[in-house]
Amino acid sequence: MSDPSPRIDAERVRRRIERLAQFTEADRPYTRRAFGTLHAEARAWLAEEFRSAGLAPAFDAGGNLVGRRAGTRGDGRALACGSHIDTVVGGGRFDGIAGVMAALEAAQALDEAGVRLGHDLLVFDFLSEEPSDYGASCIGSRALVGRLTPAMLAGTEPGGETLERAVRRAGGAPEALTGPLPDAARLAAFLELHIEQGPVLEREGVPIGVVEGIVAIGRMSVTLHGRAGHAGTTPMALRRDALVGASALVQDVWERARAAGPGFVATVGRLEVLPNGANVVPGEVRLVLEARSLDEGAVRAFLDESERRARGTARTLGLELEAEVLDTAPAVRSDPRLMAALEGACDARGLAHRRMSSGAGHDAMEVARVAPVAMLFVPCRDGLSHHPDEHADIADVAAGATVMLDALRTLDDELARGHR
Amino acid sequence: MSDPSPRIDAERVRRRIERLAQFTEADRPYTRRAFGTLHAEARAWLAEEFRSAGLAPAFDAGGNLVGRRAGTRGDGRALACGSHIDTVVGGGRFDGIAGVMAALEAAQALDEAGVRLGHDLLVFDFLSEEPSDYGASCIGSRALVGRLTPAMLAGTEPGGETLERAVRRAGGAPEALTGPLPDAARLAAFLELHIEQGPVLEREGVPIGVVEGIVAIGRMSVTLHGRAGHAGTTPMALRRDALVGASALVQDVWERARAAGPGFVATVGRLEVLPNGANVVPGEVRLVLEARSLDEGAVRAFLDESERRARGTARTLGLELEAEVLDTAPAVRSDPRLMAALEGACDARGLAHRRMSSGAGHDAMEVARVAPVAMLFVPCRDGLSHHPDEHADIADVAAGATVMLDALRTLDDELARGHR
Repeated sequence: MSDPSPRIDAERVRRRIERLAQFTEADRPYTRRAFGTLHAEARAWLAEEFRSAGLAPAFDAGGNLVGRRAGTRGDGRALACGSHIDTVVGGGRFDGIAGVMAALEAAQALDEAGVRLGHDLLVFDFLSEEPSDYGASCIGSRALVGRLTPAMLAGTEPGGETLERAVRRAGGAPEALTGPLPDAARLAAFLELHIEQGPVLEREGVPIGVVEGIVAIGRMSVTLHGRAGHAGTTPMALRRDALVGASALVQDVWERARAAGPGFVATVGRLEVLPNGANVVPGEVRLVLEARSLDEGAVRAFLDESERRARGTARTLGLELEAEVLDTAPAVRSDPRLMAALEGACDARGLAHRRMSSGAGHDAMEVARVAPVAMLFVPCRDGLSHHPDEHADIADVAAGATVMLDALRTLDDELARGHR
Repeated sequence: MSDPSPRIDAERVRRRIERLAQFTEADRPYTRRAFGTLHAEARAWLAEEFRSAGLAPAFDAGGNLVGRRAGTRGDGRALACGSHIDTVVGGGRFDGIAGVMAALEAAQALDEAGVRLGHDLLVFDFLSEEPSDYGASCIGSRALVGRLTPAMLAGTEPGGETLERAVRRAGGAPEALTGPLPDAARLAAFLELHIEQGPVLEREGVPIGVVEGIVAIGRMSVTLHGRAGHAGTTPMALRRDALVGASALVQDVWERARAAGPGFVATVGRLEVLPNGANVVPGEVRLVLEARSLDEGAVRAFLDESERRARGTARTLGLELEAEVLDTAPAVRSDPRLMAALEGACDARGLAHRRMSSGAGHDAMEVARVAPVAMLFVPCRDGLSHHPDEHADIADVAAGATVMLDALRTLDDELARGHR
């Protein structure tokens, strides 16, 4: 870190983020859906930016736009960073984008300072991290690690086009997606910067979050069966009101999740009442309960305990309860050495930092299957994301890019010294 | 009651109820929608049954099928009874029907015994008591009392036909609906038998419920505004979860309504969550709270207190609450003399009875605007109504018809002796 040298240009980061924001559907900013024309145009622009930063752009078989700069050692081992530039409908200007721009800026800073890493450097713009119209999400990062299955590629959007065809349109080579891509085996480390998409850093005034991992997600569908009845003619004492049971569950989940301490969240986000008439005692309620934590055991235990307690309440109310565990996503842990490199960079720059978990999934979660990963979060205003008002201060994005740059240089040294 | 004489024929009641049940859409029993072909065919049959019971059938301007038998006094004053034979979609064989058949049987018993009342006797089959496709309900009884407004008559069903046109098709004369119909001014009393549509009489083993009145209904729409957020990235401590607030309201309403004692009910039957995604903290919940009681003040107080308490909870949770009182239907009290006549008839026949309120609306509620009314309830299985499995024992319907017959004779004497 003692070089004279590589410096992040915050103004350039700002300009690029503003320029990229112009690639949006005019009537619903900010919308740049993967596989659409605006997305292709934005990537054509991005490829030129890569070039201006000394990165050779090319699409891999998964349709990821990858900027490459060869290292001095020539052993093929690579350090990688990046994120994605596709958006949800009516999304923002920073989700994913900040990560690609920070990675690009770090590469450009190295290039401008004439600093060449020992490792090759790869900057990824992953294809379609956001849920796509074809049914899958994290399409490019899944492809990188060999998890974009034939079934996923056969998925179609409402117009009937298959994902396979769409990946080809996006520059990929779906016939080559038979296992991890060549880059996967070369990765010594992957770093992803992302806006927090939550309010913690902003509230605490901390500019950098070092992500310990992406939480495990457990989901359980719960159906409470009571008995529909006329709201005028069914006395209170003879009711079997499914919504009363469901409300008790919501209250219980709320109280217990709040008591579970930081890093644990649980939510009933989806709830439907049947028949849902103002003058009908609810006969059935279907809801989905989810819990998230880095501690998978805590997630499972919370769901189990929620079910046990809801069964007790249901019995008291004369309801029957059906519970079914839906998909469970395991936790993904960041690599301790990569976290240490990020924290060391923060300390050297005098930037406050805190460890935190990521409650949302990211491309890094896929990459973790083939390489050590770590993420850093920067604050975003009001925790807002997937919204046109999504905002991050450029100074924070630039600070994050600086930390990433410094960490890449640390890791370039450390990982060359025989640690793999 | 000391005549040799008029006797209810339970077997005839059973046959008629079974025959009427055949007028149903074949693929969704029991469906006989007002204004439909099956309804018209059923009424043609019913008119003949009226005739066989000594009742002269005719449609009034409101499309009610009215069977008439002249009284001995010839002063135009009339005693009336009846209900309706239209059904909801997928309804039952007894709702409304039992009341028309009991009234018809009482008239026939008088006729067969050669007993002629002093008052004229009217048996009503009211048009479209159930909510119609034209937007209104209790169409015939509203017409009788002069409350079928031009706005209601201008209502259209999805196919575009106006209610005015439909009433004409059903035998009415909508141009004459400018005020109460001639029969309205002649009514000395109106009695309606109905299945309870609730479980109380069956549970208590009591064959006759004497209805003290039809409850007041108060409805309030409540919207809780929180803040939608990512269920993974929004810590529990920073959430403003609208569903947590709504669940507290549901619990509170449940506890307080149960404590309010018999005759009071309150229900949250309709509740919608926005955006209703499994991974999104609920940003908004819209619900409808209703309360019913014979005591209108208690209904109002309950809604007020529910709002007050919900506001407190909302404040604690960082939610905003909007509450709006929707339609409020006033309570309708039965006439004490009519109730006494029903109870006297029960006592004389050794039939157990209890007073109760009606939690649902009925044609009698409309008729009460122009004449003293009372209702009697008979038990129905499991409290089930508006369902193909709706069931009442014919013995109970026949017992109710006997009570109605006896009460009509009592009232015929009492009301002739100079009272009103």
